[in-house]
Amino acid sequence: MKSVVVTGAAGFIGRHALAALARRGYSIHAVSRSPAPYWAASSMPNVQWHRAELARSDEVERLIGTIRPRSLLHLAWYTEHGAFWQSPENLASLSASLNLLRAFAEHGGSRFVGAGTCAEYRWGAGSCHETETPLRPASLYGSAKKALFEVLSAYAPSKGLSWAWGRVFFLYGPGEHERRLVPSLIRNCLNKQPAVCHFGQLRRDFLHVEDVADAFAALLGSEVSGPVNIASGEAVELGQVALAIGRICGNGAGIEIGSGVPGQNEPPEISAAIERLEREVGWSPARTLEQGLSQTVEWWRAKPGVLQ
Amino acid sequence: MKSVVVTGAAGFIGRHALAALARRGYSIHAVSRSPAPYWAASSMPNVQWHRAELARSDEVERLIGTIRPRSLLHLAWYTEHGAFWQSPENLASLSASLNLLRAFAEHGGSRFVGAGTCAEYRWGAGSCHETETPLRPASLYGSAKKALFEVLSAYAPSKGLSWAWGRVFFLYGPGEHERRLVPSLIRNCLNKQPAVCHFGQLRRDFLHVEDVADAFAALLGSEVSGPVNIASGEAVELGQVALAIGRICGNGAGIEIGSGVPGQNEPPEISAAIERLEREVGWSPARTLEQGLSQTVEWWRAKPGVLQ
Repeated sequence: MKSVVVTGAAGFIGRHALAALARRGYSIHAVSRSPAPYWAASSMPNVQWHRAELARSDEVERLIGTIRPRSLLHLAWYTEHGAFWQSPENLASLSASLNLLRAFAEHGGSRFVGAGTCAEYRWGAGSCHETETPLRPASLYGSAKKALFEVLSAYAPSKGLSWAWGRVFFLYGPGEHERRLVPSLIRNCLNKQPAVCHFGQLRRDFLHVEDVADAFAALLGSEVSGPVNIASGEAVELGQVALAIGRICGNGAGIEIGSGVPGQNEPPEISAAIERLEREVGWSPARTLEQGLSQTVEWWRAKPGVLQ
Repeated sequence: MKSVVVTGAAGFIGRHALAALARRGYSIHAVSRSPAPYWAASSMPNVQWHRAELARSDEVERLIGTIRPRSLLHLAWYTEHGAFWQSPENLASLSASLNLLRAFAEHGGSRFVGAGTCAEYRWGAGSCHETETPLRPASLYGSAKKALFEVLSAYAPSKGLSWAWGRVFFLYGPGEHERRLVPSLIRNCLNKQPAVCHFGQLRRDFLHVEDVADAFAALLGSEVSGPVNIASGEAVELGQVALAIGRICGNGAGIEIGSGVPGQNEPPEISAAIERLEREVGWSPARTLEQGLSQTVEWWRAKPGVLQ
């Protein structure tokens, strides 16, 4: 049975990645600083949970030295809502990732897939292409992710390591932080309260988190090398997303679309070229935006305490 | 009295940096994984020696938290002759540097100067200019240094940290590893043995290590921000360096200059634009190449065990 270590296993993408990998027949070593959540303990027989603090190089060494995984899906990073763009925790996440990468390669690892971000690209120059769009991050988060990408690119060949780097764009879906755009619109709509989308004209590429997780699982199982955008390939106006949520919740009248102009690091459009994902990885999403939003609304509706 | 922490204090540049900083009136906290060498213990009253393993984030935290330095000159890096270009130790050096940088900023640090390298640049496109020449390293060493540079650039402003990054080119002088070009030529010449310079036509920018160290001390004391090349500004043929060494040693006839063509990562010329160093830092070297080589030959001549 193929085995894989997944870091950040309790995170937004991580928890869905476990399911996607389990469907593909992997035996999974889930790594997190948190204890195993109830859903992992109860319903996933192929998942073994390991608590570890990746910032501690001795813990990383012990963990990887014990498991000696052939594959690694590295999703762990500091992602505190709002704070993550400029937090010094980005330095700690980068440092921990370097230790993890090295331990993995030196203990016989064969395939490494890491999570990158659209924030590595220079924004505002059209659709982001993996190798043609310049990398020029405007945030510490983007800089630190780019640094890991570049060191990985230089290091992997010397160890004969197969690797890929999935650049994530905009996500939504079950488990998203409730203060982010999609959840806050859904919660207001479900409670028949006014829901405001201030920057209705910004265009962003959204992908449901279960699709993102499934794409990572597909990328891990492929032999594709280098950076691969993980996105839908279509940018949608935030206003359209808000209107769809209002419609699905039966609260269309409660949606207010602003046409504000945000700060300099929010260009009108952030979208992805997805030829590599479609053709080389051979992956496409399981659901449309409308379907994904409907499923997400149902998830929030069923969550205790959301309906007031 | 101004105080400064110097990492890599027992290294090739580090040991000379202590002297340069002492001349400028700094009180110095020298950090190394080695115990204090005899010369530091005996002759440098303004130097306090701290043994620390920078790869251990708890040691870094304790060290910086105790000293709480205002200035930091970060020279420590893995530099094992020959191995350093592609060694995985570059990941550890980068990881340690990130922990150090963060601890320094969070404990009230004010001025950070790090050691970069000409290997960050894309070689072969003429004289390397700090902001105009693309950064495109061909080695893991260059990639890891560039990664630290870019994270530093993104992180420092958010902490109000003043910073500079001295990109070092080619060094020579007392204390250089004996298997490198200049020492091996000198040792052979001093012993009247044949001395071969295989790639006589390559042009490189050489600077005496005491000048490099002095330039770092000047850069630390300045308010100059960002990357600054630390070099002479003139590329010299390796064959000319070899002939000068032969002449100084009185062994001109023993020098053999080859015109071999080395591998792809050795372009015909690597040279530096030095306008920032000269005009903004206001620094220039104390010695010519001829003077520097003469002093270096004398150092080797006096070193026990060199003359056979």
